[in-house]
Amino acid sequence: MAQKSAPDSARRSEKSRRAIYDAALALVAEVGYPKTTIEGIAARAGVGKQTIYRWWSSKADVLLEAFLDLGEQANEQAAAAAAAVGREQPEEDALPDTGDLAADLKFVLRATVDELLDPKFEAPYRALAAEGVADEKVGTEFVARLLEPGLQLYVQRLRAAQEAGDVRPGIDPRIALELFVAPLAQRWLQRSGPITHEYTDTLVDYALHGLAPR
Amino acid sequence: MAQKSAPDSARRSEKSRRAIYDAALALVAEVGYPKTTIEGIAARAGVGKQTIYRWWSSKADVLLEAFLDLGEQANEQAAAAAAAVGREQPEEDALPDTGDLAADLKFVLRATVDELLDPKFEAPYRALAAEGVADEKVGTEFVARLLEPGLQLYVQRLRAAQEAGDVRPGIDPRIALELFVAPLAQRWLQRSGPITHEYTDTLVDYALHGLAPR
Repeated sequence: MAQKSAPDSARRSEKSRRAIYDAALALVAEVGYPKTTIEGIAARAGVGKQTIYRWWSSKADVLLEAFLDLGEQANEQAAAAAAAVGREQPEEDALPDTGDLAADLKFVLRATVDELLDPKFEAPYRALAAEGVADEKVGTEFVARLLEPGLQLYVQRLRAAQEAGDVRPGIDPRIALELFVAPLAQRWLQRSGPITHEYTDTLVDYALHGLAPR
Repeated sequence: MAQKSAPDSARRSEKSRRAIYDAALALVAEVGYPKTTIEGIAARAGVGKQTIYRWWSSKADVLLEAFLDLGEQANEQAAAAAAAVGREQPEEDALPDTGDLAADLKFVLRATVDELLDPKFEAPYRALAAEGVADEKVGTEFVARLLEPGLQLYVQRLRAAQEAGDVRPGIDPRIALELFVAPLAQRWLQRSGPITHEYTDTLVDYALHGLAPR
């Protein structure tokens, strides 16, 4: 596809922005959220402090956007990898819908396990999540910009499953998704148990079929 | 019941110990875990630093024991309140078992909601949990000494339910409990949704009966 080349200033901005994101993620992973400063990010990215303040209002803001960008990059890579092996991709920002709810949920949760175990992702995400637990303002931003948009994709998939008759009509999808998402989140956040594909498969089976005899 | 009175030195120790717990919990709630120090706890409790180091090896150690003690106090108060209204109490360190699994789980989770919303408990518990997310050593202690012993009570109750035929035989109780405990934990830790009795009742119903049509 033909693409107009960006003007020099836009290319320079894009490069600085990426350097700032990389610096912010690396720094918070190394020294934790409390010791990460705008000055430290600027020094590491090789830009002036003013460059950062022109685009963002706080370090929480830089870090949240760095994360959103990391997520987009991961999505693009996944799409490219899927295209390379001829696998059909779901619409952007939607969970797969093959008609098999259990298989689709297991697929997405396995990918989430891989992401949570990836050190590039794990250390900065943990630093930001920890600060969100301690600090209500950071926590609220974290949920609104990172966590909740992801959870809404499960809401959509569960609504489609309700229409297909695979989930009971009276179920609230926003609560239902927590039965398989929250156990993984808690094990990861609190290190309260191992995180594996087998584990998330089990969560999906238990949540769909229930603990009581059928 | 007649009780031998403690010797003077034991009473003094007990009083210092309680003063140190109170100081530690108040301080961590006010300034957060990173800024809480043994010196600060000692000054607030009106004891020497050496008194603290004689009994505990670190601030994490003091705080964890302060929490265990707070939990014991809450249990004693609950037992006294139940006795006052003639309600039968479960054995110490066991969940109620009335034979109605759903009712018993809802009862315990409602009590947990009340505790999580109690400011006396909430602020220091959150400070400690946040540090556990950030710091692996504190997190591992937090899980081993505070979280996991509580979760094991659910394991016991679910095993009894399996024996009674109320939970399918193939279910792993240690994973099953996460379907209703982890959503509450995540909403509280990440402030990702409101915490109410109606919410935890719904979690129990969804977990026991499953999301798929029966």
